[in-house]
Amino acid sequence: MQRAIELARWGTYTTSPNPMVGCVLVNEQQIVGEGYHVKAGQGHAEVNALAMAQERAQGATAYVTLEPCSHYGRTPPCARALIDAGVKRVIIAMQDPNPQVSGRGIQLLEEAGIATQCGLLEESAQQLNAGFIKRMQTGLPRVICKLASSLDGKIAMKSGESKWITSSQSRQDVQRLRATSCAIISGADTVLVDDARFSVRYDELGFGQQYVEPDNLRQPIRVIIDSRYRLHPQLALFSQASKIIIVRSQYQLQAEPEWPEHVQVIDVEGDANGKVDLQQLLPVLGQMEINNLLLESGGNLASAFIQAALVDELWLYQAPKLMGADAISLLALPGLEKLDQAQHLTIKDIRKIGPDIRIRASFANE
Amino acid sequence: MQRAIELARWGTYTTSPNPMVGCVLVNEQQIVGEGYHVKAGQGHAEVNALAMAQERAQGATAYVTLEPCSHYGRTPPCARALIDAGVKRVIIAMQDPNPQVSGRGIQLLEEAGIATQCGLLEESAQQLNAGFIKRMQTGLPRVICKLASSLDGKIAMKSGESKWITSSQSRQDVQRLRATSCAIISGADTVLVDDARFSVRYDELGFGQQYVEPDNLRQPIRVIIDSRYRLHPQLALFSQASKIIIVRSQYQLQAEPEWPEHVQVIDVEGDANGKVDLQQLLPVLGQMEINNLLLESGGNLASAFIQAALVDELWLYQAPKLMGADAISLLALPGLEKLDQAQHLTIKDIRKIGPDIRIRASFANE
Repeated sequence: MQRAIELARWGTYTTSPNPMVGCVLVNEQQIVGEGYHVKAGQGHAEVNALAMAQERAQGATAYVTLEPCSHYGRTPPCARALIDAGVKRVIIAMQDPNPQVSGRGIQLLEEAGIATQCGLLEESAQQLNAGFIKRMQTGLPRVICKLASSLDGKIAMKSGESKWITSSQSRQDVQRLRATSCAIISGADTVLVDDARFSVRYDELGFGQQYVEPDNLRQPIRVIIDSRYRLHPQLALFSQASKIIIVRSQYQLQAEPEWPEHVQVIDVEGDANGKVDLQQLLPVLGQMEINNLLLESGGNLASAFIQAALVDELWLYQAPKLMGADAISLLALPGLEKLDQAQHLTIKDIRKIGPDIRIRASFANE
Repeated sequence: MQRAIELARWGTYTTSPNPMVGCVLVNEQQIVGEGYHVKAGQGHAEVNALAMAQERAQGATAYVTLEPCSHYGRTPPCARALIDAGVKRVIIAMQDPNPQVSGRGIQLLEEAGIATQCGLLEESAQQLNAGFIKRMQTGLPRVICKLASSLDGKIAMKSGESKWITSSQSRQDVQRLRATSCAIISGADTVLVDDARFSVRYDELGFGQQYVEPDNLRQPIRVIIDSRYRLHPQLALFSQASKIIIVRSQYQLQAEPEWPEHVQVIDVEGDANGKVDLQQLLPVLGQMEINNLLLESGGNLASAFIQAALVDELWLYQAPKLMGADAISLLALPGLEKLDQAQHLTIKDIRKIGPDIRIRASFANE
């Protein structure tokens, strides 16, 4: 199963909106087939492993990181393919998180007389597809909030100067984080101040074509909140032809500029202050099959997401610098009066990235 | 030599103002003697190792983490003891950092026909005694600034509430840091606000008597800056009888209260604002044989130390909390306008301490 999880991981940069899945077929203590899911519309992990095993699948045991599907989607059901190939036993790491189909693949296998077992390395399999699982269970994307600060929690000097607090190594790490995301969300402010593109520059990812084939390269959808109609088509953001979604709370308040074809404008209810209501927006992004949403914004939008309890994980890049009390704080979070009202997180991982520190912290109570 | 360094480390909580030293005697590929320096006035590492080896020291090779001393101090010179025991070869990790005696021990050994070699695991040996080395070379103590904050760099709510940002595990770690320090320095503010004692509570260190014998327990000297005569003998600080130094810049401005015997009041020149000039104070503490000085204060005194370039290392305990922009920032550091003026540090170590993160960062440019 460990090997199947490793295989699944090869899909990190390509499978979405589908989950990453890996499959290993073992016959008489020998691996006879291996496969993983590369991208939507292409073969599932099981089908790829069966293709490799051919007739040696007969009587084999399949290790698969996610319950085989039971329905005809873009491809025929994998449970059926395993049955037809004569597989004898199927070991599954976790059930399908989609409540509408969960358990049906296992049922189909068992009805065909195949022994199944579920739960092996379940936690690792869940980590693979945290975004997909969350969307299936809640309809919402999994949100990672990325921020960069000094050790004393500052994101910019008083003048607004913020380029570059963190190192080139941290920025490369952010490129990789972007590449694993289905979409990036930010505000018009950030786009205007930094003339940000939010593009994944594959030559800056620092890994070769053996890991992601050029044909499978994916640019995250760029979602920009712009209720005050400040974006315009001349921005660098629009020069790259991958999909952009502009979110407004006051749609048709002004005439839309003539946007290029890859730009879509959507309307979401405003909150009391006329700002986009994030609680309304997130399910819309979930419906667009966005599993992993990366929040890359200034402190205000990040604070709004955190205060709305919509962030799953914080990725904080800390540069080994001290910027002083006059500099601008990481987050606004108004209304906190007492220490026990502070936002509590759980540290998941700390590591050095070049000269900086990267902290991954979860907002879940654990 | 690795073993000698391990042995030296047993003196972590006891040797100061002396350095930690370990010694291993090897004869015919067998360890015949081991020793480390426990505390000032007691036997040096070499003497302890020779006492264990007895006649087997004859013809042995000595591995010692610091150049054997050549002078009569509290004990006779170790170089002489090695010569008299008939040791054949001496391998030394580092020379004596005291420029007045450095090299003399080696000279004495070589004049007696003993082969010497210096520099084996030198860096590890230097790390053992960073404070001692700095004091020998500059006359100044090595300063560690300890601070505790949230992930967004806040040390207290707007109301001043700060108990407890970090966890009990972090506070235990601070107890150990205190126990390795010759002295703790703070301001009257911190003493008054928290009624702080700055004592080492050995039952909270979390290690048993095999590591530090009760008789050798040491309380760091407590140095409190109090130019405005706000300390008074009823404070909890004074209830513990270990040494306290009160530092004033405007000595005899007011009558001194009647202090207990363990309290000493010293006068240091004031700066333009009448505050104690830290550049004047530090050499005075160096003269008192303080190798390792732990700065445990509020943000203002910490900022003054940092701006005076008197801090060697920052130990930042970060709790996984977000406290928001209204809360009080870690450090003041006024006058920073541009990002390239920010204080730059080098991360030496990051680790989890209970739910928190501990970051050790050096102010040295590396």
